[in-house]
Amino acid sequence: MFGLKAVDGHGQLEAGQIVQLLAPIFDGGQKAKALKGGRLYGRGLPAGPGAATGRIAFSAERAVEMAKDDKVILVRIETSPEDIVGMHVAAGILTTRGGLTSHAAVVARGMGRPCIVGAGSLRVDYGKGELRAEGHEPLEEGDWLSIDGSTGEVMGGKVETQPSEVIQVLIEGSMKPEASETYRNFDRLLKWADALRTLAVRTNADTPNDARTARLFGASGIGLCRTEHMFFAEERILRVREMILARNEEGRRKALEELLPFQRNDFNGIFRELAGMPVTIRLLDPPLHEFLPHTEGQISAMARDMGWGFVELRAKVAQLHETNPMLGHRGCRLAITYPEIYEMQVRAIFEAACDVKKDGLGVHPEVMIPLVGTTKELEILCDMVRRVAAEVIQERGIPVDFLVGTMIEIPRAALTADKIAETAEFFSFGTNDLTQMTFGLSRDDVPRVLAAYQAQDIYQVDPFVSIDREGVGGLMKIAAEKGRSQKPKLKLGICGEHGGDPLSVEFCDQIGLDYVSCSPYRLPIARLAAAQAALKS
Amino acid sequence: MFGLKAVDGHGQLEAGQIVQLLAPIFDGGQKAKALKGGRLYGRGLPAGPGAATGRIAFSAERAVEMAKDDKVILVRIETSPEDIVGMHVAAGILTTRGGLTSHAAVVARGMGRPCIVGAGSLRVDYGKGELRAEGHEPLEEGDWLSIDGSTGEVMGGKVETQPSEVIQVLIEGSMKPEASETYRNFDRLLKWADALRTLAVRTNADTPNDARTARLFGASGIGLCRTEHMFFAEERILRVREMILARNEEGRRKALEELLPFQRNDFNGIFRELAGMPVTIRLLDPPLHEFLPHTEGQISAMARDMGWGFVELRAKVAQLHETNPMLGHRGCRLAITYPEIYEMQVRAIFEAACDVKKDGLGVHPEVMIPLVGTTKELEILCDMVRRVAAEVIQERGIPVDFLVGTMIEIPRAALTADKIAETAEFFSFGTNDLTQMTFGLSRDDVPRVLAAYQAQDIYQVDPFVSIDREGVGGLMKIAAEKGRSQKPKLKLGICGEHGGDPLSVEFCDQIGLDYVSCSPYRLPIARLAAAQAALKS
Repeated sequence: MFGLKAVDGHGQLEAGQIVQLLAPIFDGGQKAKALKGGRLYGRGLPAGPGAATGRIAFSAERAVEMAKDDKVILVRIETSPEDIVGMHVAAGILTTRGGLTSHAAVVARGMGRPCIVGAGSLRVDYGKGELRAEGHEPLEEGDWLSIDGSTGEVMGGKVETQPSEVIQVLIEGSMKPEASETYRNFDRLLKWADALRTLAVRTNADTPNDARTARLFGASGIGLCRTEHMFFAEERILRVREMILARNEEGRRKALEELLPFQRNDFNGIFRELAGMPVTIRLLDPPLHEFLPHTEGQISAMARDMGWGFVELRAKVAQLHETNPMLGHRGCRLAITYPEIYEMQVRAIFEAACDVKKDGLGVHPEVMIPLVGTTKELEILCDMVRRVAAEVIQERGIPVDFLVGTMIEIPRAALTADKIAETAEFFSFGTNDLTQMTFGLSRDDVPRVLAAYQAQDIYQVDPFVSIDREGVGGLMKIAAEKGRSQKPKLKLGICGEHGGDPLSVEFCDQIGLDYVSCSPYRLPIARLAAAQAALKS
Repeated sequence: MFGLKAVDGHGQLEAGQIVQLLAPIFDGGQKAKALKGGRLYGRGLPAGPGAATGRIAFSAERAVEMAKDDKVILVRIETSPEDIVGMHVAAGILTTRGGLTSHAAVVARGMGRPCIVGAGSLRVDYGKGELRAEGHEPLEEGDWLSIDGSTGEVMGGKVETQPSEVIQVLIEGSMKPEASETYRNFDRLLKWADALRTLAVRTNADTPNDARTARLFGASGIGLCRTEHMFFAEERILRVREMILARNEEGRRKALEELLPFQRNDFNGIFRELAGMPVTIRLLDPPLHEFLPHTEGQISAMARDMGWGFVELRAKVAQLHETNPMLGHRGCRLAITYPEIYEMQVRAIFEAACDVKKDGLGVHPEVMIPLVGTTKELEILCDMVRRVAAEVIQERGIPVDFLVGTMIEIPRAALTADKIAETAEFFSFGTNDLTQMTFGLSRDDVPRVLAAYQAQDIYQVDPFVSIDREGVGGLMKIAAEKGRSQKPKLKLGICGEHGGDPLSVEFCDQIGLDYVSCSPYRLPIARLAAAQAALKS
């Protein structure tokens, strides 16, 4: 079905098609019946392939609750980081706004969730708790909905699905390899690709479970573990908020101390899943206000929970508000102002590493500092990482080898990469942010202009999907060359969404990167694309 | 008082000090009396030098109204573009939030208004209409307040001020040159500087009045005329809003047609003030939502004014909301999606140019496209500019020479400057945005980190005050070299705030720019700094 020779109109091998072998599928007869029965409610953009059916939940909280009893389709106007826990438990995700690079689309693809975005003909009314489509009765929370993330079709009612055969064999173990020809073709193709490629392929994974999936999909390590995703679970977010609202460093340290065991536990699980492999952990990146509620209702509930006055809490939320959060108080800037946050995270990493190594397993943490723009930021924070690591290693009496490096995601870091490489032991290109800043264009706001831009042939490809070789790629080349002029063996990788895009993987191979990193479900694509790049060069 | 030999600790000549000769001054005896009398209410950051006294106005609207009868101090928590009309009429500006690069500080310096920002010990309560300071009775709207923008002192009550002697001679004509030794020193120094410098010095000016001031301060043209500033006056903002809220292109064109005479009239006045000199006009830059109200009260008032339903209007405002407006739907992106906006502006420019030229005056418009990131954007919009210009020139039968060029303010434009220069006839470095994007740091949000960054020696200078030579400057060099590799005589200038900063002027001279452009009141600094740079090289 998928040969290395398949070629599209631009001469590019279609590595991306392999992902379709992984997506859940509708029972064919049932879907035909639903469409014939007039249950097509609307269409959106197919943002995450595969079929999903479940009961409608209009909020992440409801999704979590309802998912205990049944499958859930999370239906939102659009999603934000606070919805991640709801997206995790959902069988599928539907938004009425946003494009193929919206938060919902990017996160859903990362999770391998079937997803439809920008279903503009549908209307979500959170107030009434209704999903409306012209010519149909409104659907309410708890009603069944089915979405085909491969085609963009939204159907009312339940349409039964089943996992792909590859998943049944590889992840679930519910089918024997011998029983699936699809799986055996998949496996043969990827083994062939692995023998050809020179690029290593790592994964973006934030939980032991993601790490396990990634291992089964052939990852040779983690290229990006986003520690903030560990903060959104119910019992943790409260402590994160306590930390943010603390009136002084002492209060922050106390809240952080309570978060430490959770992070250590997550790192422990991840290190065990990928024993012997390198694991790159990015220290806290998003602005703190992302962890706080924003509507008056949510603020009021949180004030009650935390024993704050409503007015006082609302003022605190307002004070943390930023005009351009993407360009605000986040990444390493958080640690320059509140070093205790990263100190806790580094301690958790090395305590977990020592525990795992004690059990005889290989552990290779690579601590990554985000949003570095100047050498001095990196120097200050690398010193801190090495100091805390040394403390933990001495306390436990267990040596752990590690690297400290940085993301290259700010144009200034790329332009001054020779200086940055004096301190950094590796670079990982954060091409999502690097693209935003190089283009001066926010990924969240791009849908407003993208249609007009593509219609007028201004962007040949969406730069958030495939690396813009001239601009963003030009900066990457400058950074790679300057970095290696300072440190010839500097390890170079990429951990943006582009790491799972075949054209971008080819470019990464061309400029001499050591590895690409992508979400678990895109690993087969990246492995194939890396082989194709090797063949081409 | 100011010699070219004055040197500070870093070996840099203190060109900046000359600006103090321009600021209004308190009557010395009155100020001493006020301080002795316990009328010091608090302190903030000295953001715009000079003394001001006036009645407190808590909003731009009230400031405009009150300014008809008396001097006004505009007192805000912070300012936004909608406050500009209020800042224009105010004798001084006080904010309780924000740093030296906040909107209030930047705009006030541009206007030459005495300004104090970040006076954190004072509290503005818009609801009660009060300014509170510990240990004092609250001040109400209409009460007198005096601010010393050179020292940051905020005093209750009226303290009489007078214009500097230089202003009295040069701008007001109320004093003869012979009567002021200060003026004659000032004039002699600048004439000497003009003879030495090779950099041209232009001005950032948005009104005929600013243009006149700039001419008197020695500008040799306009480097940046921000057309959006022409949209905020009362009778205009209504039409701008009609344009934004129009349901289709026809509605937008109708509203734009009504705006055209206002813009034409402004351009006419500016061209006449600077007859014979080049005038660079930047087409609309800010996102459209900056022209809409945001609070429920304002939305409700606007809905009434415009015959919209409140709910409908609120939804429209919400729809235009952007997560990161700095990286959003603005600049040339507006014109790619709504070409009729720039078409109106270009028509207004050339109708005015023809009218002025008809009267025998020299007119040299340089039309500037903002926020260009790709060659294709520029090609599309240059074609449009040339087409509309040709139409007007043919209609009027009056030939006008003009240039079409672009700002270089997006890293990608700098990186691909050779391609951009195929189309552009000039580059103007927009170093405010270029700094924001190269650092990944928003000027509005920087105050949160700046103190910690300066304390830890991460930023030796505030990159929004003085060009970061390594990063932002590196991009500027790339752009200058690539641009001139394509077009050896390509005209290069700078129009960011840095154009009035002595260290930045020196850098611009080093990399071969043709001119710097700065706000009228910084022209003497720029002229001096340009001479110092020439001496040094």
